[in-house]
Amino acid sequence: MKYGQLINYEDAAPEAQAVFDDIKTKRGVPDVNNAWKAMARHPAVMKRFWDRAQQVMAPGALDAKTKELIYLAVSVANGCDYCSASHTHLAKGKGVSEEELAEMVEIVGLALQGNSYATFYGQDVDPALKP
Amino acid sequence: MKYGQLINYEDAAPEAQAVFDDIKTKRGVPDVNNAWKAMARHPAVMKRFWDRAQQVMAPGALDAKTKELIYLAVSVANGCDYCSASHTHLAKGKGVSEEELAEMVEIVGLALQGNSYATFYGQDVDPALKP
Amino acid sequence: MKYGQLINYEDAAPEAQAVFDDIKTKRGVPDVNNAWKAMARHPAVMKRFWDRAQQVMAPGALDAKTKELIYLAVSVANGCDYCSASHTHLAKGKGVSEEELAEMVEIVGLALQGNSYATFYGQDVDPALKP
Amino acid sequence: MKYGQLINYEDAAPEAQAVFDDIKTKRGVPDVNNAWKAMARHPAVMKRFWDRAQQVMAPGALDAKTKELIYLAVSVANGCDYCSASHTHLAKGKGVSEEELAEMVEIVGLALQGNSYATFYGQDVDPALKP
Amino acid sequence: MKYGQLINYEDAAPEAQAVFDDIKTKRGVPDVNNAWKAMARHPAVMKRFWDRAQQVMAPGALDAKTKELIYLAVSVANGCDYCSASHTHLAKGKGVSEEELAEMVEIVGLALQGNSYATFYGQDVDPALKP
Amino acid sequence: MKYGQLINYEDAAPEAQAVFDDIKTKRGVPDVNNAWKAMARHPAVMKRFWDRAQQVMAPGALDAKTKELIYLAVSVANGCDYCSASHTHLAKGKGVSEEELAEMVEIVGLALQGNSYATFYGQDVDPALKP
Repeated sequence: MKYGQLINYEDAAPEAQAVFDDIKTKRGVPDVNNAWKAMARHPAVMKRFWDRAQQVMAPGALDAKTKELIYLAVSVANGCDYCSASHTHLAKGKGVSEEELAEMVEIVGLALQGNSYATFYGQDVDPALKP
Repeated sequence: MKYGQLINYEDAAPEAQAVFDDIKTKRGVPDVNNAWKAMARHPAVMKRFWDRAQQVMAPGALDAKTKELIYLAVSVANGCDYCSASHTHLAKGKGVSEEELAEMVEIVGLALQGNSYATFYGQDVDPALKP
Repeated sequence: MKYGQLINYEDAAPEAQAVFDDIKTKRGVPDVNNAWKAMARHPAVMKRFWDRAQQVMAPGALDAKTKELIYLAVSVANGCDYCSASHTHLAKGKGVSEEELAEMVEIVGLALQGNSYATFYGQDVDPALKP
Repeated sequence: MKYGQLINYEDAAPEAQAVFDDIKTKRGVPDVNNAWKAMARHPAVMKRFWDRAQQVMAPGALDAKTKELIYLAVSVANGCDYCSASHTHLAKGKGVSEEELAEMVEIVGLALQGNSYATFYGQDVDPALKP
Repeated sequence: MKYGQLINYEDAAPEAQAVFDDIKTKRGVPDVNNAWKAMARHPAVMKRFWDRAQQVMAPGALDAKTKELIYLAVSVANGCDYCSASHTHLAKGKGVSEEELAEMVEIVGLALQGNSYATFYGQDVDPALKP
Repeated sequence: MKYGQLINYEDAAPEAQAVFDDIKTKRGVPDVNNAWKAMARHPAVMKRFWDRAQQVMAPGALDAKTKELIYLAVSVANGCDYCSASHTHLAKGKGVSEEELAEMVEIVGLALQGNSYATFYGQDVDPALKP
């Protein structure tokens, strides 16, 4: 099994095929993204990640769109090219507009700037913020 | 000027005092957080950061609460202790509930997990996601 | 010298050629990976990195396989695509199995999740853990 | 609920108390670490993290000691102070020696150095490493 | 608008075209880099980033060459492939030599190593360094 | 040996004492920083890090002040609180002014912002930047 190798449905283990089927049904897509085809190399890892993603990303106190924006923003801040591409696509499918994406990416940049200032200026956490 | 040293209003440069005044007025608080008192060491840096934060965090296509959640999630993912504390406080002031915070932090954890899987499995970006 | 440019053996400086020779002998491979061909741009940097890698990765209290898994896990967590690919290859050469790789990548994801929770929940280090 | 606030057993929700009990039993300790007392703020998040940690860190193809070293190395590379402290403690409890810790931290430093060289030198992944 | 899609001058919004023109004039280049053609998707984000880059990177207490080296070092440490490539190019245009680049990348590796040691060894900040 | 524990000169191993002596002589200080007192837990790790730091940070094509600024900028970007504090102190000792520090921290913030934009917009590296 090589780095980046994609496993198509017909070559996948039954446990991975079940995840493929579930993704296709729940997302209403004819095929899964490359990330899943690569992850099919380890069916148990893949299944646990899919199950956990379903649980965490389901609408709750936060709606699906806001959840997707948070996932995307973390992936952009963390420098994950694949994740930025795939979750931008997912965000649009959940109704996130270009204007919202533009605002999101500026918040990411601002937060990273603010984080670096907090490290450099080195202040203690305010007593009012701690117990 | 030492690491982490706090500059109070009366010792701050006029340009920094103007930022202190603006923060207190716009946030309706009697004093500014330690981050601003430390950043007052460099009044021009402080003023530009405050101005940019005002511009980026103002309600637009995304509302103030969603913007704050995105800023907080990036800071948590990035491991910034001070920023996590202060922006959790700001988020609550904008109406973010404990349930929403609990969902946010699980999304951060899931995204970081997914980002590491994308690196390890190493698949190329799907043609459908690129032009 | 452009970004990503590879320098083959015949075009490399003598100090870089000596590293090429040493890698090929010690790893028993006919040619070095692209990372070394690119690093040959700066022979002194390359030589110091190779020498340090030899010293750090040599079996000691930890065996070579465990050391390689740690190197790989850090590279995956840190989002380094090239390093993940090349050190997965090296790990397999040292006897790391697919099952072990699958467990490694789940630990990376769990650790990153746990790290983000530690930042968000913001607890002080327990006295029992500090002197 | 403030940043960093610790919730003791008697003040915790029943779902969190059940996790406290399970940790104390399985680890044979009289009390849980601060990380769990802080995470008790969100019992469902806490329970899912504990369950997932149990599943991922259980001995499998890799033994418990190697798994703990990988978790610790990722936490150190990622700059998580609390996680470094608590997982060093856990590693020692699983038999990791000072010599092994010393080797682990040098591998972390080497991997981060190597990761930055891969970014700077910018070589493509070797065809032999990709399908 | 897809991930990575490039917008050429003739297809760009007037606000983006004005940035293209300004970059070409100030850098004396016939065309802008891909980063700007992709960022043209969001003209207001692009304009604010260009304006801020102009302000921050202008010679001041630090000269242009030192500023470019700092920008590049941060990008390398942060694992940004595109930024490493484009800012190496910019650095050379500002007179940074191969010898200086080689020294810069070794400092990045050393700093990341030192940062991980600081996390692992976990010492408090010395009183002499704090107020 | 506990997390964060400091080892004073009289309790250190001879190999660590030799490093303490060398630091005190070369830096002209009466005592070493906490980072070294904690690292003395592993004398061989400590000695190798000190030797490597001496080699990498010595004036070469880049002067000592520029090198220190690069080390500091990487540490700030990487969120290392201890390293930011100690290397700000070292930078001042090498003649770095408050104005230069203020410009450095804004470059760090700009670079992190630019890095996140590169991830989000996802453009390929320009052919002119690659061989």
